[in-house]
Amino acid sequence: MSISLPREPDFAKAGGLVPAIAQDADNGEVLMMAWMNPEAFAETLATGRAVYFSRSRGKLWRKGEESGHVQTVVSIFVDCDADCLLLKVRQEGAACHEGYRTCFFRQIGQDETMILGERLVDPAQAYGKKP
Amino acid sequence: MSISLPREPDFAKAGGLVPAIAQDADNGEVLMMAWMNPEAFAETLATGRAVYFSRSRGKLWRKGEESGHVQTVVSIFVDCDADCLLLKVRQEGAACHEGYRTCFFRQIGQDETMILGERLVDPAQAYGKKP
Repeated sequence: MSISLPREPDFAKAGGLVPAIAQDADNGEVLMMAWMNPEAFAETLATGRAVYFSRSRGKLWRKGEESGHVQTVVSIFVDCDADCLLLKVRQEGAACHEGYRTCFFRQIGQDETMILGERLVDPAQAYGKKP
Repeated sequence: MSISLPREPDFAKAGGLVPAIAQDADNGEVLMMAWMNPEAFAETLATGRAVYFSRSRGKLWRKGEESGHVQTVVSIFVDCDADCLLLKVRQEGAACHEGYRTCFFRQIGQDETMILGERLVDPAQAYGKKP
């Protein structure tokens, strides 16, 4: 079933930025959550590469631009309230700037927090600086 | 590998609320994204049922309290920046208030938005009001 609306998330309602979840299109692993503004969303749609808005740097963040760990977008979903996006992606290398494939590499248990993921990449090598 | 810190997300850095992604623990489907404050997070940990903070209602939202569509939490992950949570859950019925299993039932295509999910539940029945 196809409908005409909406073509994009409701950025205005969300205060300008909507959360965007990146999920591995092949194995379903949730890789990261970042933010998109209208420009990031438009460039993602146009290029098929995930582009976010970095709140800390205050500018577009073309994922993998520096590290080479790009995300090729397979499909994009918007939620019922049109204020959150889900991107199914093919992830090159590691999604996480700490070198793990997923940013969600720490499990919170009842008594302790465990690191479950394995580092794929040395952050110092990927970004040319110490982790 | 287990570490002592952090036991919980950095709510202060996130402005009091952190995004929490709910993912089906069995098939990996991303079901919804909502928000947690420290109280919601603590109650989720203590009860093993997902509890969010409703920004529109300004209070705790015990998921499924009204509809019966509860989420039993299997595991909780925190991301690298400690400002986003991932909950792996067993979802009773439909996660979405519109009656779909996932809130991400609409795919954004190049030319149109398509509804891919099927309604499991009539929202009017689940919530006693018209959708």
